[in-house]
Amino acid sequence: MIRFYNCKILTDSFEITKNKELWVSGNRIGYIGDKKEGIFEREIDCMGNVIIPGFKNAHTHSAMTFLRSYADDLPLDRWLNEMIFPMEARLSADDALCFSKLAIAEYVSGGITSVFDMYLYPEAMAKACLQTGFRASLCGAVNNFVSSPEELERDFIKYNGIMDTLSFQLGFHAEYTTDIKILEKIAALSHKYNAPVSTHCAETEKEVAECKNRHGKSPVELFNDIGLMDNGGSFFHCVHLSERDIELLREKNITVVTNPASNCKLASGTAPLTRLDREGIRLAIGTDGPASNNALSMFREMYLATALQKLQTENASALVPEKVLEMACRNGAYAMNTDNDCLKEGKLADIAVIDLHKPNMQPVNNIVKNIVYSGGNENIMLTMVNGKILYEKGRFFIGEDIEELYEECRERAERIKNTD
Amino acid sequence: MIRFYNCKILTDSFEITKNKELWVSGNRIGYIGDKKEGIFEREIDCMGNVIIPGFKNAHTHSAMTFLRSYADDLPLDRWLNEMIFPMEARLSADDALCFSKLAIAEYVSGGITSVFDMYLYPEAMAKACLQTGFRASLCGAVNNFVSSPEELERDFIKYNGIMDTLSFQLGFHAEYTTDIKILEKIAALSHKYNAPVSTHCAETEKEVAECKNRHGKSPVELFNDIGLMDNGGSFFHCVHLSERDIELLREKNITVVTNPASNCKLASGTAPLTRLDREGIRLAIGTDGPASNNALSMFREMYLATALQKLQTENASALVPEKVLEMACRNGAYAMNTDNDCLKEGKLADIAVIDLHKPNMQPVNNIVKNIVYSGGNENIMLTMVNGKILYEKGRFFIGEDIEELYEECRERAERIKNTD
Repeated sequence: MIRFYNCKILTDSFEITKNKELWVSGNRIGYIGDKKEGIFEREIDCMGNVIIPGFKNAHTHSAMTFLRSYADDLPLDRWLNEMIFPMEARLSADDALCFSKLAIAEYVSGGITSVFDMYLYPEAMAKACLQTGFRASLCGAVNNFVSSPEELERDFIKYNGIMDTLSFQLGFHAEYTTDIKILEKIAALSHKYNAPVSTHCAETEKEVAECKNRHGKSPVELFNDIGLMDNGGSFFHCVHLSERDIELLREKNITVVTNPASNCKLASGTAPLTRLDREGIRLAIGTDGPASNNALSMFREMYLATALQKLQTENASALVPEKVLEMACRNGAYAMNTDNDCLKEGKLADIAVIDLHKPNMQPVNNIVKNIVYSGGNENIMLTMVNGKILYEKGRFFIGEDIEELYEECRERAERIKNTD
Repeated sequence: MIRFYNCKILTDSFEITKNKELWVSGNRIGYIGDKKEGIFEREIDCMGNVIIPGFKNAHTHSAMTFLRSYADDLPLDRWLNEMIFPMEARLSADDALCFSKLAIAEYVSGGITSVFDMYLYPEAMAKACLQTGFRASLCGAVNNFVSSPEELERDFIKYNGIMDTLSFQLGFHAEYTTDIKILEKIAALSHKYNAPVSTHCAETEKEVAECKNRHGKSPVELFNDIGLMDNGGSFFHCVHLSERDIELLREKNITVVTNPASNCKLASGTAPLTRLDREGIRLAIGTDGPASNNALSMFREMYLATALQKLQTENASALVPEKVLEMACRNGAYAMNTDNDCLKEGKLADIAVIDLHKPNMQPVNNIVKNIVYSGGNENIMLTMVNGKILYEKGRFFIGEDIEELYEECRERAERIKNTD
């Protein structure tokens, strides 16, 4: 049992308690409350700092760390076709494993305790999680060039239920990369397993316009007509939505995962989060991949999510910090279907300790606002996933020497870039 | 003499060298080049990390740290009149000194080596700089309620030339808080001393509309007609500009200081940086004060500056990272008229060491892009101002115990908030 003491706790209603204790027993939270007797393998003095449920990064492509700062300053279609796809063609499964571990190091150093990861090689991220102790929900990435509905079904069976830090959800890359016949087969799988389906959706104006040209309807309408939304799911980006799209997202209980940094940087636009929230649509936040963002920091995403809403709606009170923190800490857990949505006895011990003893958190007028409006990765003192400490005060406990990992990533990235 | 070795250097043309040495002699850079013989009081192995000229925060209100996370989610006019002004009325000069030191701690932990600071109490920030070793250019903040042209002139004489980490520039708060008669007297001072004048300008649509109602012209046109722009200066924000305004800013060689986080968060808008840059207008970056931002991080500002331009112009190649880094590291020095604009022998030793040994900087495909697109305060390994190390690996050397400073700030903030 690990004892955290002198710690404030972010409650389920997004309030902050006075100093309490939080005990971790195995991979679960065993106790939250006042001081009492116990025997512990380790006792951690949190010095008045705040324990939050770790951030849930609800949309990312972890292995793309190798393309960080490689392809920038291009719009989405050119970025993807001219820079990303050719490089990914040279990527091996072993490369992807190494680059995924690098992403995991970045996640835990930023208080992220689970990710909803979509990539070419689900096995690489599965191994990376197994070897580091990190938690992920893998998302199918089927399209015309990668994987197939048959392989998706095999992966769905293979990765669910094998270990408690891993799950797999049905998914495909996007409308513009995936033929109708494939989408219909994925819809059939969704019906067969009563399983949600997740995908990139309405990220750019061009994507929506081309879908309308091809099919006479928006991506959301198309997915709905094919039956892909009948069991819910998460739609990533959702920048360009019609009134009818919003109605369908609400009716079919789709989680919208926003990726504000990526949408800004690729000049795709700003998702209408304020509007979606008013409709009662569940919102979560993702970093998207490091090739488009380029950081994997939920602090950046939280700040952008609210700041861009204020800008878009011309209303400085839009998307208040309590809501943003709920999107980042809780709603992503619903999207990934993991039992780590809040700090309660019995919940998975996926936690981050926010260090208030940094200038950007002082004086402490309001902790929730501090986290959302001033916070950064420098405020992560400790990150625990599934009851194990993976990061503490600058040191990594992910089964790898961090400098060796950097070096291996560097060598692999150089090889990939310099292959003809 | 202090020797930095195994360090890459950001050159004047915003390229990164291979590993070099950088020696600091007194408060100046003494040598940059390959390894050679020398005798040193300290030798610092930079482990391949990058030395950059420290960030120049070209617009801030340092002492406002006490209002961080206190007044949020309000538009500028309500934020100022209902929340900020009443609290500032209770602030003493001693309070301002303490809160300014807290800001300085945040600056140095984020690689910021000088600030252009506008506040009610220039003496407080002057003392804070003297006591901590930090560098600031103080900016007059005259308006109808605070200070006067006479006091401005006294301050201008008092704070210039007394110490090498301090200077003072003529300035006033804004058009909407300052009568024409006062502005005319400040213009006369500018002509008397051939000195630039700086101010908040065109931050909100409302400000510009009300100015037009009052005077039949925009703030920029008004300032120009009064003669306030004849010796240059820095205009802060510049979100809402007409064609004529842009022409005048260019003609009069005004530096535009953008504050993207604050403009987003207060729903003021996005400054047309791409357009201003095309006109050849010099651009610098500021955090604005911690009550509106709420962090004092130039990494956040750099990311927002470019990301918001991509969004505004719908062009993912807008405001490239090299330009952004120039705005952050160099152009602010021109605005403040300090000799710390680049890393060259003879320049002031105001430097920051960027730690590449963090996951968000790996693999190193492009260091400039890494800094602008992925960087955060966690990447600051060391900050030196005027030849003295003020921050290194989480520790502060600013003449104050950091925990005692936090505690004093907390006590003062509580007193101010709880006074009737």
